[in-house]
Amino acid sequence: MSLKSWIEAANAPDCDFPIQNLPYGVFSVGGDTRRCGVAIGDRIVDLAACEAQGYLDAAGTFSAPHLNDFIALGRVKWEEIRSVLTALLAQDGDENVPTVAMSEATLHLPIRVTEYTDFYASRNHAFNVGVLFRGPENALPAQWTHMPIGYNGRASSVVVSGTDVIRPMGQLKGDDGPIWSASKRLDLELEIGAIVGATSDMGDRVSVDQAEQMIFGYVLLNDWSARDIQAWEYQPLGPFQAKAFATTISPWVVTQAALEPFRSKGAERQNPLLPYLHESRPGLYDINLSWSLNGEVLSRTNYNVMYYSSAQQLAHHASSGCPMRVGDLLGSGTISGPTPDSTGALLEMTEGGKKPVKIGDEERTFIQDGDTITLNGYAQGDGYRVGFGDCTGTVLPAKE
Amino acid sequence: MSLKSWIEAANAPDCDFPIQNLPYGVFSVGGDTRRCGVAIGDRIVDLAACEAQGYLDAAGTFSAPHLNDFIALGRVKWEEIRSVLTALLAQDGDENVPTVAMSEATLHLPIRVTEYTDFYASRNHAFNVGVLFRGPENALPAQWTHMPIGYNGRASSVVVSGTDVIRPMGQLKGDDGPIWSASKRLDLELEIGAIVGATSDMGDRVSVDQAEQMIFGYVLLNDWSARDIQAWEYQPLGPFQAKAFATTISPWVVTQAALEPFRSKGAERQNPLLPYLHESRPGLYDINLSWSLNGEVLSRTNYNVMYYSSAQQLAHHASSGCPMRVGDLLGSGTISGPTPDSTGALLEMTEGGKKPVKIGDEERTFIQDGDTITLNGYAQGDGYRVGFGDCTGTVLPAKE
Repeated sequence: MSLKSWIEAANAPDCDFPIQNLPYGVFSVGGDTRRCGVAIGDRIVDLAACEAQGYLDAAGTFSAPHLNDFIALGRVKWEEIRSVLTALLAQDGDENVPTVAMSEATLHLPIRVTEYTDFYASRNHAFNVGVLFRGPENALPAQWTHMPIGYNGRASSVVVSGTDVIRPMGQLKGDDGPIWSASKRLDLELEIGAIVGATSDMGDRVSVDQAEQMIFGYVLLNDWSARDIQAWEYQPLGPFQAKAFATTISPWVVTQAALEPFRSKGAERQNPLLPYLHESRPGLYDINLSWSLNGEVLSRTNYNVMYYSSAQQLAHHASSGCPMRVGDLLGSGTISGPTPDSTGALLEMTEGGKKPVKIGDEERTFIQDGDTITLNGYAQGDGYRVGFGDCTGTVLPAKE
Repeated sequence: MSLKSWIEAANAPDCDFPIQNLPYGVFSVGGDTRRCGVAIGDRIVDLAACEAQGYLDAAGTFSAPHLNDFIALGRVKWEEIRSVLTALLAQDGDENVPTVAMSEATLHLPIRVTEYTDFYASRNHAFNVGVLFRGPENALPAQWTHMPIGYNGRASSVVVSGTDVIRPMGQLKGDDGPIWSASKRLDLELEIGAIVGATSDMGDRVSVDQAEQMIFGYVLLNDWSARDIQAWEYQPLGPFQAKAFATTISPWVVTQAALEPFRSKGAERQNPLLPYLHESRPGLYDINLSWSLNGEVLSRTNYNVMYYSSAQQLAHHASSGCPMRVGDLLGSGTISGPTPDSTGALLEMTEGGKKPVKIGDEERTFIQDGDTITLNGYAQGDGYRVGFGDCTGTVLPAKE
């Protein structure tokens, strides 16, 4: 039988935050100071208060308005705090541990995002989008099965779930040169984001095994994309303003420790990888993912369809000697299965806007003003699930 | 007659740091605390000491190990401090102002780089490189004359002049699939970097005139590039590890105020720009630029060959609603004139490695281990020059 908590709501089999999870976030109550917390059931453990009351020792880092300082304490401290919290929150734990009701808390961006990098690691997605942007002949780039292709994104536009997303204006290709317009092809991208928890120095590389030890945890990530801005701007230097207006992440960082039981092999490899990308054990996780538009689930897939793990992406990121830092956010790339109802973006689902999808009595090709997109994900344990909570955002009209 | 200083070295006509310049940097002496300073002649004004002694008031920001906090005080404060320093350092100023000898100081990265974006705004460079990477038919992307194309770079790898650069390892295209190797085609890129000095909120756009008001100053910037890593990795998401191992900037930030007398129109426009990119006055500067390999000057060009100004680049960067922040660094893109001896990269100068250049008794196609690349630049005034000092780096062998 799986471990239970004295916080009853945590013991429901469909609760995202059982005692096996203990994801980290940043919260405030009624406009007071932002501080770090851990979600369990319908409550948040106030970690700053815990430390003040002597329950744990994290060098005061839980009083910061982000997790970066705690994360920087390192893996041994992560393990210690997880162990302390598990004991305190178990059925025979300590019911005096300071908590607040999640319903009364405001959740904030859990990390100060140092830099944001987005990858491109689902073969289905890379192929489907490649066909739409470049035709079937050139769909999958030649290097795709040899390296986790990525690009640097914009950290300043990473926001927490619940933040409204303003439809971007931009240059679109017109018949007689470009026009200035609100994007007409606004899309989501269903991704998992890995949060880097350790630094690497300039000039140093890290193995995939070392990279895995550097990852603190994971969030859901929606890499909102303006497909029409993207199509006009992205050659030869990659996406820029098409993906710079908002990237939404879930408020709770699910730790690598919590996901450990759900390790999974990824997609079958077409060719051997160069040694610097070798992993000594499966680096993906069996995480059920879905996304919905205005509450209607349009797609279900799994993180383990990916061709590259976050650890491989991190090892590649540092391969040139690029320094990595605590708080770097690595997007997995859009997670798409092989069928339209397992795609991680409307672009693929609607074949570039040609095949609308039904939502109740309505149809959509791309996202309309007022639409809400919500990502969900969980790993299924025996009698419990390790979930991420909602990663959601509503689209507001462009500021013309 | 132009203004003179009581610091005699500042009055030499070929001194980079006359009283008309007053560029900001960060320095330390003999391992003591990093603090902000201003270069004049052969000395550095110790701004932290100046404030402690009551010469000026900058809310203690000059004691920080970077300029960001001072910059965040805003344009009115920038103007006030410039005016105070000009009076103190003029011939009839105050010789008790605390200074240190530049020869005794260590110079550090002047700003904490929040994010780094690199553009692609020299038409000669875009065309030359386009021919080499994609052939003459597809050399200049269709949108190039309509928008300042850019990509997000890696802020963690920005280093100050004088820092050694380790040749990167990476994936190169081989005859039977990729190989893991040290880059064999290591290159420089001669650029000017603009430092953003004000924030814009998510969802807001800024006009070119507003963007200009947001720029604090400029540095020389060498965007080191591994052309073989780049060629294999860069499609479709742009350069990544090829430009993530090091970007060198000069230690002194030359303010927009100091460059004001040198405003210059850029390259002739091929087509009208969309209104959001309109500038009400010339946004480039007449800055003489050169770069040398092991002391031999191989190329001379001018910043005013560029097609887009930094203010236009910043306005485009914010056009989707992307938030901009104090400390963002915007690379101009490689600055190349029309002839081989005015190119800003070896890739262009040697036509992709086909035409070696002479350096004394030696030849080069790309940069060899031990080579030192130095960028220089100055705007020529009447009897003085506003210079940037050296932006230099020596290449060390790869860590195999």
